[in-house]
Amino acid sequence: MSGAYDVYSRHCPARLVLDRLADKWALLVIGRLRGGTLRFNQLRREVDGVSQKVLSQTLKKLERDGLIGRSVIATVPVTVEYSLTGLGNTLAETIEHLSRWAESNMPGILAAQQSYDQRSGLTEVP
Amino acid sequence: MSGAYDVYSRHCPARLVLDRLADKWALLVIGRLRGGTLRFNQLRREVDGVSQKVLSQTLKKLERDGLIGRSVIATVPVTVEYSLTGLGNTLAETIEHLSRWAESNMPGILAAQQSYDQRSGLTEVP
Repeated sequence: MSGAYDVYSRHCPARLVLDRLADKWALLVIGRLRGGTLRFNQLRREVDGVSQKVLSQTLKKLERDGLIGRSVIATVPVTVEYSLTGLGNTLAETIEHLSRWAESNMPGILAAQQSYDQRSGLTEVP
Repeated sequence: MSGAYDVYSRHCPARLVLDRLADKWALLVIGRLRGGTLRFNQLRREVDGVSQKVLSQTLKKLERDGLIGRSVIATVPVTVEYSLTGLGNTLAETIEHLSRWAESNMPGILAAQQSYDQRSGLTEVP
């Protein structure tokens, strides 16, 4: 724990923030915006598999948390662009590590899962 | 993306791993085990708010992924201890950064939320 906040304590606001970040869509959106400003439809294409509704909700929550900014440009139709705030940028680097870890350690994880399933006679853990 | 795996691709196994990690209980359990081996009931106390059922499911998934190890000691009643594997240790450091980030940046996030709610006239975003 650092200072007044402690993620291990159930009622601490830091636990709520960790809960917010413990969402693959939030992690992927923040990671993608690290490359620069993107429009809604660009984000939707680049975060493969996200629905319009979920992306919209995710962006709203991240904006409320002060992690991303939203700029409306008066084109016809209106263009809406999203980018990381200064606060969001400090988080993005940590998230990038988590994504890189997941990508780099896939062989080890897949091997562990296979071995576990053989030992336990299960084919899948839900 | 690093090598063959890409978390931004919907069907990549790395996306599944990111999804597994995008779970506050998994993050908190891994973070806690960084301090050393713990028994089930110790973990339950130290990860404030987790239920017995959810902790048990979380531990099983993390064991299957090869991130934690489970040792059964032949006491009466049996003692079960959990610890990070080598793979789990490499992940724990990244997770620690995420928890520290949440704790350190609470004032900025709370201020952003208040300002957003005042602008939008909402009291809460679910």
